[in-house]
Amino acid sequence: MDTPQENADSITSLDWEKAAADPQYRAAVVDLLGALAYGELAAFERLAEDAKLAPTLDDKAALAAMASAEFHHFAQLRDRLAAVGAEPTEAMQPFAAALEEFHRQTAPSDWLEGLVKAYVGDAIASDFYREVAARLDTDTRALVLAVLDDTGHASFAVEKVRAAIEAEPRVGGRLALWARRLMGEALSQAQRVVADRDALSTMLVGGVAGGFDLAEVGRMFTRITEAHTKRMAALGLAA
Amino acid sequence: MDTPQENADSITSLDWEKAAADPQYRAAVVDLLGALAYGELAAFERLAEDAKLAPTLDDKAALAAMASAEFHHFAQLRDRLAAVGAEPTEAMQPFAAALEEFHRQTAPSDWLEGLVKAYVGDAIASDFYREVAARLDTDTRALVLAVLDDTGHASFAVEKVRAAIEAEPRVGGRLALWARRLMGEALSQAQRVVADRDALSTMLVGGVAGGFDLAEVGRMFTRITEAHTKRMAALGLAA
Repeated sequence: MDTPQENADSITSLDWEKAAADPQYRAAVVDLLGALAYGELAAFERLAEDAKLAPTLDDKAALAAMASAEFHHFAQLRDRLAAVGAEPTEAMQPFAAALEEFHRQTAPSDWLEGLVKAYVGDAIASDFYREVAARLDTDTRALVLAVLDDTGHASFAVEKVRAAIEAEPRVGGRLALWARRLMGEALSQAQRVVADRDALSTMLVGGVAGGFDLAEVGRMFTRITEAHTKRMAALGLAA
Repeated sequence: MDTPQENADSITSLDWEKAAADPQYRAAVVDLLGALAYGELAAFERLAEDAKLAPTLDDKAALAAMASAEFHHFAQLRDRLAAVGAEPTEAMQPFAAALEEFHRQTAPSDWLEGLVKAYVGDAIASDFYREVAARLDTDTRALVLAVLDDTGHASFAVEKVRAAIEAEPRVGGRLALWARRLMGEALSQAQRVVADRDALSTMLVGGVAGGFDLAEVGRMFTRITEAHTKRMAALGLAA
């Protein structure tokens, strides 16, 4: 992961206390933690909802486990917001519309679509967390990587989706379209957030003093999209 | 809590290894753990669903926390089933119909009904766990009490419901009716389970060699109903 501007490099060697002395950096991190926290809470809700589509009790339990893991991530992020003196609800609220809209636009119509969504969502979130972590102070980075660390349920989804495509190859075409729609909707909501939240966006593209560089945001989205495409191919889905 | 028959007293002083030498006792405990496990998984699903009705993000997070706690109870019970050599899904399946029917009959129509249901459900479950724990071998009792131990979210619901009734007293009448319906539906599904599952029911009424005593099951239900009535009165709801 490259940190394209000088200022980002200096932030990444500071701890939270020192980095947060810059009020613009502080605001950007509160924004980031708010966005991630709402994202985890929304993911909890949707996974719990998708668990209802499970064909077996084991499958239901597996999706419920994922949902519960997302809830614990949410709780860590919320507690961190409170610890740095931010009001968690206030920090999350600006991202509610984009995340709710994403989930409204991508409600799975069956179990396999739900699995692909859980897998794609988890993977995109991981990529994004990693991109962001490389731009953060040491304390916030540790939290973001910790929250990222135990989303290890992807292999369950991969295994089930592969088996379904093997059993009925035409399922693959439908799911490939679905994965493309998920990625498109995710990018469109992310662009909405980027346009709305200056401090966050400026940090994402390399340090608050570096100024806002739309091209760098575009490059980040491109990297995440490329990783998504590779994953879909590995899953037997032409993205 | 009295254990009405001699045989129950002797089971309660044995560990699982010794108690499970009696195949009828073993079958009863597998039934019990299966019923509790499915109950927790269903509770997870419903609380996660009810979280959608939450008027604020804080409320949503509180219900999601309850749901996540239920999932962890489920995981403990499922792991215990596996540890004693039972197939968890098989053990849970016989109770799916009764629990799903309970939740279908008692889908809350708004946030306050959801809270009352979470509170009433949690409390009835606790009472039942305690009644049952008094009849179990030492190892199974420790598990059941541990699972019972951290359902400590009731005070959240109590506080919110009290505040709502204070703000608008006529809400109390509607919620009192609702609580009565919840209890009635719970009893009716419990009776269905009692009628279906001989080994479990026999254990519940005092030891596998003690024979099946419908009157004792009735007394247990009466004790649970009385405790429910007292709780509803304390909440400002005439049950």
